Amino acid sequence: MNCDEILREVENIVWPKKLKLFTAGPVACFPEVLKAMSFQMFSHRSKEYQALHRDTTLRLAEFIEAKKATVLLIPASGTGFMEASIRNAVTPGGKVLVTIIGAFGNRYREVVESNGRKAVVLEKKPGEPVLPEELDEALKKNPDVEAVTITYNETSTGVLNPLPELAKVAKEHDKLVFVDAVSAMGAADIKVDEWGLDLVFASSQKAFGVPPGLAMAAVSEAVFEKAKNIPNRGWYFDLLKYKKYLEKQWSTPSTPPIPQIIALNVVLRTIEAMGGKKAWLDMYARRAERIRKGVLDLGLELFATPGYYSPTITVVKTPPGVKGVDVYNKMRERGFEIAKGYGPVKEYTFRIGHMGYITDEEIDELFKNLKEVIEELKQK
Amino acid sequence: MNCDEILREVENIVWPKKLKLFTAGPVACFPEVLKAMSFQMFSHRSKEYQALHRDTTLRLAEFIEAKKATVLLIPASGTGFMEASIRNAVTPGGKVLVTIIGAFGNRYREVVESNGRKAVVLEKKPGEPVLPEELDEALKKNPDVEAVTITYNETSTGVLNPLPELAKVAKEHDKLVFVDAVSAMGAADIKVDEWGLDLVFASSQKAFGVPPGLAMAAVSEAVFEKAKNIPNRGWYFDLLKYKKYLEKQWSTPSTPPIPQIIALNVVLRTIEAMGGKKAWLDMYARRAERIRKGVLDLGLELFATPGYYSPTITVVKTPPGVKGVDVYNKMRERGFEIAKGYGPVKEYTFRIGHMGYITDEEIDELFKNLKEVIEELKQK
Repeated sequence: MNCDEILREVENIVWPKKLKLFTAGPVACFPEVLKAMSFQMFSHRSKEYQALHRDTTLRLAEFIEAKKATVLLIPASGTGFMEASIRNAVTPGGKVLVTIIGAFGNRYREVVESNGRKAVVLEKKPGEPVLPEELDEALKKNPDVEAVTITYNETSTGVLNPLPELAKVAKEHDKLVFVDAVSAMGAADIKVDEWGLDLVFASSQKAFGVPPGLAMAAVSEAVFEKAKNIPNRGWYFDLLKYKKYLEKQWSTPSTPPIPQIIALNVVLRTIEAMGGKKAWLDMYARRAERIRKGVLDLGLELFATPGYYSPTITVVKTPPGVKGVDVYNKMRERGFEIAKGYGPVKEYTFRIGHMGYITDEEIDELFKNLKEVIEELKQK
Repeated sequence: MNCDEILREVENIVWPKKLKLFTAGPVACFPEVLKAMSFQMFSHRSKEYQALHRDTTLRLAEFIEAKKATVLLIPASGTGFMEASIRNAVTPGGKVLVTIIGAFGNRYREVVESNGRKAVVLEKKPGEPVLPEELDEALKKNPDVEAVTITYNETSTGVLNPLPELAKVAKEHDKLVFVDAVSAMGAADIKVDEWGLDLVFASSQKAFGVPPGLAMAAVSEAVFEKAKNIPNRGWYFDLLKYKKYLEKQWSTPSTPPIPQIIALNVVLRTIEAMGGKKAWLDMYARRAERIRKGVLDLGLELFATPGYYSPTITVVKTPPGVKGVDVYNKMRERGFEIAKGYGPVKEYTFRIGHMGYITDEEIDELFKNLKEVIEELKQK
């Protein structure tokens, strides 16, 4: 058997048929990003790697407006930074106010508790955001929490939290602010320094349209200062160690996922070539609007509270009697991979991801098919 | 600026000139592996991903002879599993016997201590392996340790520890055996069940010749059983959570590095097509011998104790008056990226990695140039 046959065998496993991806992530990557993934490897202790790491870090810092905060790249999924935030910047046994608007807020609670800290929970109904006055009230009731966690964009419900306002409230109470921006960074604006975010993290495989395997974050000086007095931070997610390697050699303590870093660099340069952050975010905003309009034109309802729609994923209520999973399966048969409903609203929702490499023509095709599928399922 | 220009810009950062790689890792990847890295992405909750994960896991389990143990793939570098072994299977405050024969044994000590456990150290001089009778003696003196850590192949000194014999001793003392096989798996034989290894882990970017970003391990039932009673295991490296996701859906709790898993699958199929594990390990053994012979033919000395030579990296003593880093720099000027000396022996050694995509012709060219470089440097 030769190499081409082996490649075809494996391709048949992962791509048995062509699918247009409207997933919650990993998302379809831009063609140039996929080309960049196949660059030959090299040592992460070489000066070439240092140049790559430095350039990528600086470009990302500019994109998320982190001049004071330190941008870190780590070999992990986004959840790695969730764990890092708690192990580095919350005292063992200490309290964290975890705001929950869906499945990923709930994950933060699990991370807090499984690392021996206590979670105080502010939970909203699925589809609703956290409002600044609610956070203020919760912090007044719980003045002893050390930090607040916020899901910027909740992938399970399609809700974008009002992050700048929430961060402002948390800062008024002098709390550290940890932000899960996994499905937000790259599509929803982030101004790390101005908004006072202490740790805001994301993953490569979402709005930047890079394959999975890399997590990125901006970390404030306050987190590093606090970490100095936190015992048992561990090795793998020790943020002080990451900072040391960054300052010493523009690298990471253990081997980084070089292909994904190269790919992210290509995306950040593409953004620059497109005209910068605003042009890129506008592209996402237009795409999200086109998708929401498509949903409404079919007579379907959006799940999220108006005014808090996600720029990266739209959650749709199914018509009475139609199951979300049936819409998913029927669309798959027609060559479209949307995302199933998730968590408690799984049964009667489905999700349309907007991230990565998606053309307007594909969106139009999606809705043409979705219309037929919904009609079929209603008649059953 | 178009996409091709952007790709060329980035390529100029990471590959400003062509280099033949004899690195300690990441290593040069086989051409078919690089092609596999550029497959389009897809959801890790799809049935296609499940098929990929299952197939890769089963092939790796066969390669390392893990029928009883569970093979896990995680989004991390190898060190992630180092941390996982301690957090999941050693009681907080409990003791671990850490055997150290170089820099990576020392890393295991750091991981133990930074996670709030106590390290009892058995340390050998650089270049020497741990001998079974030494381990036996250390365990007699420290009957209260819960586990023993062993670096199978020490990348900093080029020494392969006698793993089966060491594991046998540890098992006679009824201890858990954790093995750092990062630079061994794929080139040195591993028989997980037969040797009684409780957690043996590696990284994608070493002897399998896949880009970095993926860690693989086999984990024994004893580790999972012990984990059930260990508090504060955390979320990201909670091995019980990984096991649950594997059993429930052939996937991982958070998003896996799909390109590296595809690439590993391609390598495992290539190994099968070559005739299986023995043929692949023989290729590495022949390559290692060719490189050691090349070193000796130049009148240079090997750093490792005879009988314990690494199959993946050869550490070479420089002649009197010649610095390791000068050899590295001169070879780089000639288009060869070897590895600098590492740790306490950095000054008067250099290292030649044998892993990944290297042809016999490149090895011959390496030594032709190395000969000239050594002569130049001696005359200085």
